[in-house]
Amino acid sequence: MAKRSLPLSRVYGLLEPGPVVMVTTTGRGQANIMTLSWHTMMEFEPPLVGCVISSRNYTFGILKKTRECVINIPTRELAEKAVACGNTSGRTIDKFKAFHLTPTAARIVKAPLIDECYANLECKVVDARMVERYNFFILEVLKAWIDPSKKDPRTIHHRGKGLFVIDGRTIRIASRMK
Amino acid sequence: MAKRSLPLSRVYGLLEPGPVVMVTTTGRGQANIMTLSWHTMMEFEPPLVGCVISSRNYTFGILKKTRECVINIPTRELAEKAVACGNTSGRTIDKFKAFHLTPTAARIVKAPLIDECYANLECKVVDARMVERYNFFILEVLKAWIDPSKKDPRTIHHRGKGLFVIDGRTIRIASRMK
Repeated sequence: MAKRSLPLSRVYGLLEPGPVVMVTTTGRGQANIMTLSWHTMMEFEPPLVGCVISSRNYTFGILKKTRECVINIPTRELAEKAVACGNTSGRTIDKFKAFHLTPTAARIVKAPLIDECYANLECKVVDARMVERYNFFILEVLKAWIDPSKKDPRTIHHRGKGLFVIDGRTIRIASRMK
Repeated sequence: MAKRSLPLSRVYGLLEPGPVVMVTTTGRGQANIMTLSWHTMMEFEPPLVGCVISSRNYTFGILKKTRECVINIPTRELAEKAVACGNTSGRTIDKFKAFHLTPTAARIVKAPLIDECYANLECKVVDARMVERYNFFILEVLKAWIDPSKKDPRTIHHRGKGLFVIDGRTIRIASRMK
């Protein structure tokens, strides 16, 4: 799908609500996907994102080595594929092929965008000092993409053990907060 | 409301979906509340939670000094009060009084629970090494409380500038993930 560039100042509005995300990396010439929910915004601009990636995951070693990834944000339509990516390992399968997801070239990093996701954030690791103790990577978002045709993206939020709450309605409350 | 104790192993299911939370502290004999969305689970059990609290916030200094707080999770009914707490400072007002919220005694920490919130997590700071650089505190949840009468809590998720998405319906997808 045709994506447009999103100003970096608006990235926090995508991640702050806590959606399940699919992180792509490329290592040894092979693109991979992992699914995670343990992430947080850490700075507005340039956007910094902290995320926990277990050292048991195939992605861990690749991210540590290549220091780049893409955070892809799926909507409800992709929930089953997001779970499938979370239940399998890139050590043994090609998840793009196995789950019929489309890799497209990123602008800055080698890891691919997942075309089917409504937003994609190209990232580099900027601080790995918390990796040894907490598996916690601090990423800077270098480039953000969004699908302008998706007017009401419904992201998913993991409540544990395969339960996911889907975004419901949106309300506006007058606020001075960013 | 009457809360029951929640096993610490189940805390991740409350925070992983990324709800807006209200953090309470007590400093100089005065309880305070701040609202935030920049948090992430970091470990299942004992539950570790990372959160960003800006050094501009009144809570920052109190948390740094007292090293304890409560993470209170509001539902949609409290959204306006959560925003009001986010738009004001404990330097100048008593938010419990101003917004008609009820402080109740925690079991372990001095900071109070917000009675109206459906879940409350008593926390201590276990790692402050990232505070100077990122305003990032790592908390351990010592005790968790939940309102068993709230069968379908609808939490809220900030999308920026006063837009909040409310939890919609929940789906189950067979998963091997915790």
